Amino acid sequence: MSMSKQMHLGAFMRPVSLHTGAWRYPGSAPDANFSFSHLKRFAQTLEAAKFDAFFMADHLAVLNMPVEALKRSHTVTSFEPFTLLSALAAVTERIGLVATASTTFDAPYHIARRFASLDHISDGRAGWNIVTTSNPDAALNFGLDEHVEHGERYCRAREFFDVVTGLWDSFADDAFLRDQESGLFFDPERMHVLDHHGPSLNVRGPLNIARPPQGWPVIVQAGQSEPGRQLAAETAEVIFAAPRDLAGGQELFADIKGRQDALGRSRDHLKILPAAFIVLGDTIAEAKAKRALLDGLVHFESGIASLSIALGLDASGFDLDAPLPRDLPDTNASKTGRQQVLKLAETEGLTVRQLAQRYGGYSGLAFVGTPESVADEMETWIDAEGSDGFNVVFPYLPQGLDDVAHRLVPELQRRGRFRTAYDGTTLRDHLGLPRPDNRFFPTR
Amino acid sequence: MSMSKQMHLGAFMRPVSLHTGAWRYPGSAPDANFSFSHLKRFAQTLEAAKFDAFFMADHLAVLNMPVEALKRSHTVTSFEPFTLLSALAAVTERIGLVATASTTFDAPYHIARRFASLDHISDGRAGWNIVTTSNPDAALNFGLDEHVEHGERYCRAREFFDVVTGLWDSFADDAFLRDQESGLFFDPERMHVLDHHGPSLNVRGPLNIARPPQGWPVIVQAGQSEPGRQLAAETAEVIFAAPRDLAGGQELFADIKGRQDALGRSRDHLKILPAAFIVLGDTIAEAKAKRALLDGLVHFESGIASLSIALGLDASGFDLDAPLPRDLPDTNASKTGRQQVLKLAETEGLTVRQLAQRYGGYSGLAFVGTPESVADEMETWIDAEGSDGFNVVFPYLPQGLDDVAHRLVPELQRRGRFRTAYDGTTLRDHLGLPRPDNRFFPTR
Ligand SMILES: Cc1cc2nc3c(=O)[nH]c(=O)nc-3n(C[C@H](O)[C@H](O)[C@H](O)COP(=O)(O)O)c2cc1C
Ligand SMILES: Cc1cc2nc3c(=O)[nH]c(=O)nc-3n(C[C@H](O)[C@H](O)[C@H](O)COP(=O)(O)O)c2cc1C
Repeated sequence: MSMSKQMHLGAFMRPVSLHTGAWRYPGSAPDANFSFSHLKRFAQTLEAAKFDAFFMADHLAVLNMPVEALKRSHTVTSFEPFTLLSALAAVTERIGLVATASTTFDAPYHIARRFASLDHISDGRAGWNIVTTSNPDAALNFGLDEHVEHGERYCRAREFFDVVTGLWDSFADDAFLRDQESGLFFDPERMHVLDHHGPSLNVRGPLNIARPPQGWPVIVQAGQSEPGRQLAAETAEVIFAAPRDLAGGQELFADIKGRQDALGRSRDHLKILPAAFIVLGDTIAEAKAKRALLDGLVHFESGIASLSIALGLDASGFDLDAPLPRDLPDTNASKTGRQQVLKLAETEGLTVRQLAQRYGGYSGLAFVGTPESVADEMETWIDAEGSDGFNVVFPYLPQGLDDVAHRLVPELQRRGRFRTAYDGTTLRDHLGLPRPDNRFFPTR
Repeated sequence: MSMSKQMHLGAFMRPVSLHTGAWRYPGSAPDANFSFSHLKRFAQTLEAAKFDAFFMADHLAVLNMPVEALKRSHTVTSFEPFTLLSALAAVTERIGLVATASTTFDAPYHIARRFASLDHISDGRAGWNIVTTSNPDAALNFGLDEHVEHGERYCRAREFFDVVTGLWDSFADDAFLRDQESGLFFDPERMHVLDHHGPSLNVRGPLNIARPPQGWPVIVQAGQSEPGRQLAAETAEVIFAAPRDLAGGQELFADIKGRQDALGRSRDHLKILPAAFIVLGDTIAEAKAKRALLDGLVHFESGIASLSIALGLDASGFDLDAPLPRDLPDTNASKTGRQQVLKLAETEGLTVRQLAQRYGGYSGLAFVGTPESVADEMETWIDAEGSDGFNVVFPYLPQGLDDVAHRLVPELQRRGRFRTAYDGTTLRDHLGLPRPDNRFFPTR
């Protein structure tokens, strides 16, 4: 029997779930946003299930939703990723810890230091999700009048990556001699002063921290645009993608791995993990009913606001308990966005109200079914080169997470698709990624 | 019997000690800079001893020493404070956690968020040591050619404090209703948009984090200059000072508390805690011998470099085993600095070599003796209005810390000068500081 391709699993965490109705779901903990004990339990459960990583998104402003939606969402406030993941590092031993940090609104010296420090504290479990920041309101919190232009953001991001990795390489792995006898603590010949001068950044260095245990923390990317994909192909080791279906996953997979071929990078050195919303039940019907219950908890006011934005017109005047009218007027809204809405409404036969609640809740790729049916779908993705695994979005917590850990993971393990024990200790070990050489002090 | 004045104790932590010879001291752990397990043990020991707080200094560059001194010092690299203190929050329950953060090289939105997050994770134990950054080399790591001018740094610091505290007040304490029935998560009327526009900063807000459990994390200051003292009198709740002797402590104490009187602030709402280097022995002679052993481990090359800087002339040509020559030529070095050296050399009868090693090691206020004699000195300080307690510097670790926790603290407790149990749960509770009212949503 040939070994089937293994998958990697990340947990795309929000204390109360990403779904905006989740805080009203039976058994949920609506106050989990600032409850460290909840997050500790979640991380330990995921570690017991042998997840590759615990991932925290990050936003540098209150989410840019209309106030009618905002006031009904638990996603408005939560922990900051470095403080949270560092605390979790102290109460876990193996699971990877991936924090999001912005190259647009932070300084490379700070970012390099914090990830290096998290990597030391966790003994090699840190990862950096590089974002250029999607929420334009963030600019207003950092002294600007409007968001930095998209191309400029990605230019800075590319240079930022070079500076941060250069700072991580400030000291050779063997720079610290700590020779008590002679009194030599480190060898200054094994310290590199970066002295970077570029179009967006000027940074002298060296970093005041030893090289991270992983050499570099794992580089993660979530951009979707052309420059986002190119940045990922050049620098990323994991991509958190958001394709809506298998065809979309395959397109992204082929595109990124093709770009890697062109760059001479090994395909194995980048893992593509789409976000997947997973709802489990004893039967497919039960799982669908759970999802319908959850979607129904999205307050109508916030759902209709989201749907109106996606369609580019006020949807609140339509007959709410009928399907979307057939001939909608042309608008300025993104054509792709609108087509996705129409396709979804048709495929699932949703009324306007249901569609609004789906949009206000979570509308990305979803696997809804039994542990067996969902495992089937996941295997299909892996074998059809749709992805290297998934970044799991839990519909509600703790139950949705426990279901994945205790029901889906064992099914994947039985099928030989997911590890039953961690082989190594670092996030690079879990993902099968090499430790980068120090560019200033190569091993050969 | 009247109750004697209680003292507060902070721990001025470095993984291997602040003293540059400590990594060579018998029993020390020279690799502690990146060993979380060491720091966890230190924090737990200090918590068992009922310390008010664990304090981490911070520097945004490799220390600006000549390379001859730098390569012999363990202080060149260590953990970043937020990652370290957050990890410690997860493995301690009561001790305060004070991180240093710069107002010159960071953004108020980041600082406000991280301290708020640390305060939530630790259930109200965070403190912010506001610095304008002492090491001029930091500027080069943040895109500047030279350090920001002193007055400008302090102007920005004052405005920065207003913005950060304003961001902490973004949400009323009761803003989060989490009413599952009606679907209202928070009351937008109880959210404040700061919309700050000032000479150094433009920040819209609101912060994407709920008000910290302490209202505001405790505000700490360590500046010494005129604007530093004024900033402290206006904003600080703790001062980490560095007077060299009781007279210096009394001068600072009277000055700061006088400034508070003038501002109409209660004297009780600001605690002055000078850094105190404490070496304990069974006899005073033994303690002195330990210190001499420690100072002797400062490599001569780094000691003489420090001494030369303090004197403003090359001291390496003097007879090393004789006292300093009497008539030193005039130089450009700071007169106060030089006088301190001369006074120290005379009072303790040190040779040039010993003086160099003292300067290269730790030359601030020190209590060297038995638990009884040191407790006597500390009581004198407290009763003579020299301070409200101390920020203890440990000469070497773990032994120097264990000595303070297991021998000095019990002595202070026996004398009724230090708590035997924590009364409250927050850092404000330990320090006897009030919880600040929300400026936008006052309780009355
Ligand atoms: C799974 C996933 C997670 C993301 N997490 C964040 C995040 O935490 N913070 C953020 O600003 N953007 C986040 N994004 C948005 C992307 O960084 C990016 O801005 C967005 O996909 C648009 O891509 P583009 O900038 O390349 O056009 C995420 C995207 C995906 C698919
Ligand atoms: C106990 C103590 C701790 C300090 N910690 C820091 C620190 O962590 N980072 C820093 O940049 N400066 C630190 N400083 C320096 C002060 O912030 C300040 O820059 C210095 O005392 C000079 O004061 P001035 O800027 O008011 O002239 C510390 C000072 C003292 C006394």
